[in-house]
Amino acid sequence: MNIGIVGYGNLGKAVRGLLEKENKNIVKIFTRRDPASFGDKVFESLDNLLDYKDKIDVLFLTLGSATDIPELAPQIIENFNTIDAYDNHAHIPEYFEKMNEIAKNNNKVAFISTGWDPGLFSLNRLMGEAVLRDGYTNTFWGKGVSQGHSDAVRRIKGVKKAVQYTISKEEIIENIKDADKSYASYEGHDRLCYVVCDKDDEERIRDEIVNMEDYFKPYHTDVKFISDEEFEKNHRAMPHGGHVIRTGNTLNGNREMYKFTLELDSNPEFTASVMIMAANAVANYVVNKNYGAHTNLDTPPYYYLGCAHEEAISKYL
Amino acid sequence: MNIGIVGYGNLGKAVRGLLEKENKNIVKIFTRRDPASFGDKVFESLDNLLDYKDKIDVLFLTLGSATDIPELAPQIIENFNTIDAYDNHAHIPEYFEKMNEIAKNNNKVAFISTGWDPGLFSLNRLMGEAVLRDGYTNTFWGKGVSQGHSDAVRRIKGVKKAVQYTISKEEIIENIKDADKSYASYEGHDRLCYVVCDKDDEERIRDEIVNMEDYFKPYHTDVKFISDEEFEKNHRAMPHGGHVIRTGNTLNGNREMYKFTLELDSNPEFTASVMIMAANAVANYVVNKNYGAHTNLDTPPYYYLGCAHEEAISKYL
Repeated sequence: MNIGIVGYGNLGKAVRGLLEKENKNIVKIFTRRDPASFGDKVFESLDNLLDYKDKIDVLFLTLGSATDIPELAPQIIENFNTIDAYDNHAHIPEYFEKMNEIAKNNNKVAFISTGWDPGLFSLNRLMGEAVLRDGYTNTFWGKGVSQGHSDAVRRIKGVKKAVQYTISKEEIIENIKDADKSYASYEGHDRLCYVVCDKDDEERIRDEIVNMEDYFKPYHTDVKFISDEEFEKNHRAMPHGGHVIRTGNTLNGNREMYKFTLELDSNPEFTASVMIMAANAVANYVVNKNYGAHTNLDTPPYYYLGCAHEEAISKYL
Repeated sequence: MNIGIVGYGNLGKAVRGLLEKENKNIVKIFTRRDPASFGDKVFESLDNLLDYKDKIDVLFLTLGSATDIPELAPQIIENFNTIDAYDNHAHIPEYFEKMNEIAKNNNKVAFISTGWDPGLFSLNRLMGEAVLRDGYTNTFWGKGVSQGHSDAVRRIKGVKKAVQYTISKEEIIENIKDADKSYASYEGHDRLCYVVCDKDDEERIRDEIVNMEDYFKPYHTDVKFISDEEFEKNHRAMPHGGHVIRTGNTLNGNREMYKFTLELDSNPEFTASVMIMAANAVANYVVNKNYGAHTNLDTPPYYYLGCAHEEAISKYL
């Protein structure tokens, strides 16, 4: 399989590293920066993407969901099969429709919104609810770094560096099998910020953080002020994870719990792993001329293996 | 959907109870016993099954995997769509081939070997391995009742009642994220038997159990002798569960853990829930004329919901 990557942030670097680890053929990494600045011939200007129309089987779009994916993906899908991790949940249905239509019109395959949430967590919300019809679903995130919340803190005047950890409440998770409810996000999670700033700014910054609407209110939020050295030493990693838990009633007062858990040292490397798994599904869809947009919710699971159906049955069932 | 059930053991009773809870239409429950003996007009002799050929959309085969399913399912699939929980792992590939061929020849759908293992655990072994290519998979069962091991103990001379619990070792599971290996089943599990027998037989029975090849050797096995009263009071429930855990390396020494957990008060009621979920997939396959045998490994997940694809995307992705 001849592979291209568009974008080279944390996610693009992880996709590249994992593909190289498996000796896959990366034709080019497309960037909007000056490709020469990388000093590595694998980089190519995004302006020249169309030159590679017949040389690339699948393109990983490791671009931001805020504006890059909605703007670029519908253009790129006209000429390439793509995989993306578009995560703007509210806009996924319209994004699916758009990509599905353009992909079908051009005999292309778009595997959209994969990763772990959306992606594997979505799949498990669906499965949990399908199997336990009479019950409640809860999703817990963390402990992990939220980029959106970290960005929000960094936008506050005087903040030099900042990171925000979302922390799920262990005492709720431990007792979830008997809890007959879906918790609001702020009930199930706390927020913890580490901030580097001048001493004089600390009280104002703490106040601005804990009172920030949408992002921090009504969560319980702790703000810790640390030195630049401590920040660099202890807060550069990107761990994450969480649980999707479905609890339900069957008969005779019996309770059943379906629980899916991820514990990740590296959020971008795991997201990249899920995207790479989707490449096998894309290859399968292309072979079957099943063009259009696809997701983890509609893909036959053995497609991810890149092996024959009989082998999947005998090895995994 | 017009539903039939073949067999009326623990699993058949659970399927019936859960379908009635959702007000589904159970046309008949087919039995090899005298249907009149149940005093309930829903029961019908299995001999009359063919009379219902055009009156039933899907048949739940809640029969034993040792001899009943392999013998009866290939006959039944000629005239009915079926769902079964055939769990003889070593023979599943040939069973799939046989059912697939007969179902295709007769424009029928067979959803085979569903439940939680095989079934949801199989699906998660596949997914875990697809996403974390460089890693190890471990399956832990328990704490739960193993019917096969309980039966083996009951066959020992002098045993009046017996139950065997498979217990996974918590200390291994707690540290699994850093364990770079697949544990042998006996390393990850202990066995615990409760036996009712005469006092004089205790030492011989304990000796026969712990030395029984295949079933108990080389596991660490505890045998406890209890009164008939205690057995009836504390050991009639059928809890079970376990974990499928994939741990893997991504880049830079980072470790990622994918973990699927079930905690079940009632093994048969949860297995029945998974079988009932498959009925929506069967309906979907029938509508699409996608005849033949299907499993949890090849079914598009949103088929289990019985809703449109757009609804699944907007609700779960």
